[in-house]
Amino acid sequence: MLFSSTHLRKYSLPQILTFSLCTSLAFEGLLPHVTSYNVGDWGDVIAYFSGGVFYYYGHQNLSIKNWEIHKIEKIVNEPMDTKEKILNGALELYNSKGINVSTRHIAAHISISPGNLHYHFKHTDDIVKELYNRLVAAFDELIKDFKQSGAIDRESLKSVYLQSFSIEYKYRFILLNFVEIGKRVPSIQAAYRELVKRRKAEFALIFRKMVSVGYFRSDLPNEIWESLATTFFILGDFWLSHNELIDKLKEYEAAVAYSKLMEYTILPLLADPNGS
Amino acid sequence: MLFSSTHLRKYSLPQILTFSLCTSLAFEGLLPHVTSYNVGDWGDVIAYFSGGVFYYYGHQNLSIKNWEIHKIEKIVNEPMDTKEKILNGALELYNSKGINVSTRHIAAHISISPGNLHYHFKHTDDIVKELYNRLVAAFDELIKDFKQSGAIDRESLKSVYLQSFSIEYKYRFILLNFVEIGKRVPSIQAAYRELVKRRKAEFALIFRKMVSVGYFRSDLPNEIWESLATTFFILGDFWLSHNELIDKLKEYEAAVAYSKLMEYTILPLLADPNGS
Repeated sequence: MLFSSTHLRKYSLPQILTFSLCTSLAFEGLLPHVTSYNVGDWGDVIAYFSGGVFYYYGHQNLSIKNWEIHKIEKIVNEPMDTKEKILNGALELYNSKGINVSTRHIAAHISISPGNLHYHFKHTDDIVKELYNRLVAAFDELIKDFKQSGAIDRESLKSVYLQSFSIEYKYRFILLNFVEIGKRVPSIQAAYRELVKRRKAEFALIFRKMVSVGYFRSDLPNEIWESLATTFFILGDFWLSHNELIDKLKEYEAAVAYSKLMEYTILPLLADPNGS
Repeated sequence: MLFSSTHLRKYSLPQILTFSLCTSLAFEGLLPHVTSYNVGDWGDVIAYFSGGVFYYYGHQNLSIKNWEIHKIEKIVNEPMDTKEKILNGALELYNSKGINVSTRHIAAHISISPGNLHYHFKHTDDIVKELYNRLVAAFDELIKDFKQSGAIDRESLKSVYLQSFSIEYKYRFILLNFVEIGKRVPSIQAAYRELVKRRKAEFALIFRKMVSVGYFRSDLPNEIWESLATTFFILGDFWLSHNELIDKLKEYEAAVAYSKLMEYTILPLLADPNGS
C-alpha cells in the first residue's frame, strides 16, 4: 500500500523519517566500509533528514495537488473527430452562454457547415442528450473504480469527491439548467429519475458496508442513510448553482471548495472523526 | 413547559398515563366519597386508560399534523388590495408556468386592465423583486422568532425547518429559477449574496451557541460549522429543484419530506443523538 499508481497516498512524517534514517545508515554508515568513494559524513545525515522534513511539509502537498490536476485534465481532455468536435464546441457554448444556443451558432463556433452538423445531430436536444449521457458515463466509471478499489479511507473518499465535482464542473450547464432541461427533454428527466433510484440503492449498500466495517457510526437510525443519499444528490447537483449565485469560483478551485461540503457532511458520521 | 400556545409539544406515554391515573383517582377513588352522584366504577378507569393510549398512538399525531397545517395556512394566506392581488396572481402564474410570463398575462389572470397593473408595477422584474423581498422577509421573521424563543430542542428545530420549507414552497418559482433570475435581475443576485453573507454569520453564532450549551458535539473541527451553513443554503435553496426533477411532491408533503434532510444533517452533530 506504500506505493500505488492508481491511488496516491500521503506519507506520514514517521514513514518519511524512517526513509531518511535508512538512507543515512546505508550511505553514511554502511557503504563507507564497502567502497572507497563513500565517506561517512554527519552533514549528509542532516541533509537527508531536512530533505525529508521539507518533503513532508512542502513538496508532498504540492505534488499531490499537481497529480490531482493532471488526473482531472486527463478526464477533461479527449481525442476528436467531427462528432467529438461538435459535442465539445456545444459544451463550451452551453457552459458560457446558457442552453438557448442554436445549431447554427454551434456550427459557426467550430467552423463547420450547418449541414455537416445536422448530418450528425438533427436537433440541439440530441446534443444535450449525448452530453448528459457522457456526464452519467463519467460518473459510472468513477463509482465502478471506487467500488473495485475497495479503499474506504478519508483520502480516497476526498479524491472521489474532487473527481465528481470536476466532472460536474465540466458539464456544468446541465446542472445549472437541470429543471429547465428536464422540462424541455423529458427523456433526460426520465433517465435521471431512474438513475437516482439506482444510485440511491448503490449508495445505501456502500453506506451499510461502511457501518459494518466500523468506518461509520452504528448508533444512528437507519433512515439517516437514505436521507444522506438524497443530501448527496442535492449537494452534488446544485452546488454549481450556489457557486454561480454566490462564490463564482472557477474549475479546480470550485471543485476543491465545494467537495469540502461532502467531507464535512461525512465527518460527524465517522466512528473515529479525528482518526485518518 | 407542558402547556404552551406558541410551541406544540408531544406528551410522552408516561405523562399521558399519569393523567389517566390522576383522573381515575379523582373521579373514581376520591369523589364518590364526597358527592352522592359519583360512583366508583372500574369500567370508567379502564376507559380513562384506553382513552389515554388511544390519544397517544392516534389522536395526538393527527392533531399535531392539523396544527402544523393550520400554522402553514396562516403563513400562506394574507389580506388583499390591488397590489396584493397582482402579486398573488403573478406568484400563482410564475409557480405554475415558469418565469416567462408577461404583465398582460398577469393582468388577464386577475381580471384587471394592463394599465392598472402598470400603475403598480412598471416591469415584471419589479414584481419578481417584490416577491423575492417577501420571501426574504418571511425568513427574517422566522429566524427572529426562533432566536427570541431561545428554544433549542429537536421539536422546535423541526418546526423551524418545516416552516422554512413551507415558505420556500410558497415562493418556489424563485428557487426553481434562481440562477436565471439572478442573471435577469442583477439587484436580486446582489441582495442574495449580501443575505447569504449575513445569514452565514448568524448561523455560525447559532451553531457556536449550540456547541457551548452542549447541544452540539464539541469534538469536531471549527471549519465544519461554516461548511454546515453552506450545506443548509444549498439544501434550502435547491431541494425544490430536486423535488421537481424526482419526487414531485406537493406543498405540505414536500415540506415534510425534505425538511427531514435538515433533521438528519443535524442528527450526527448532536451531543446526544438518541436523546430528545
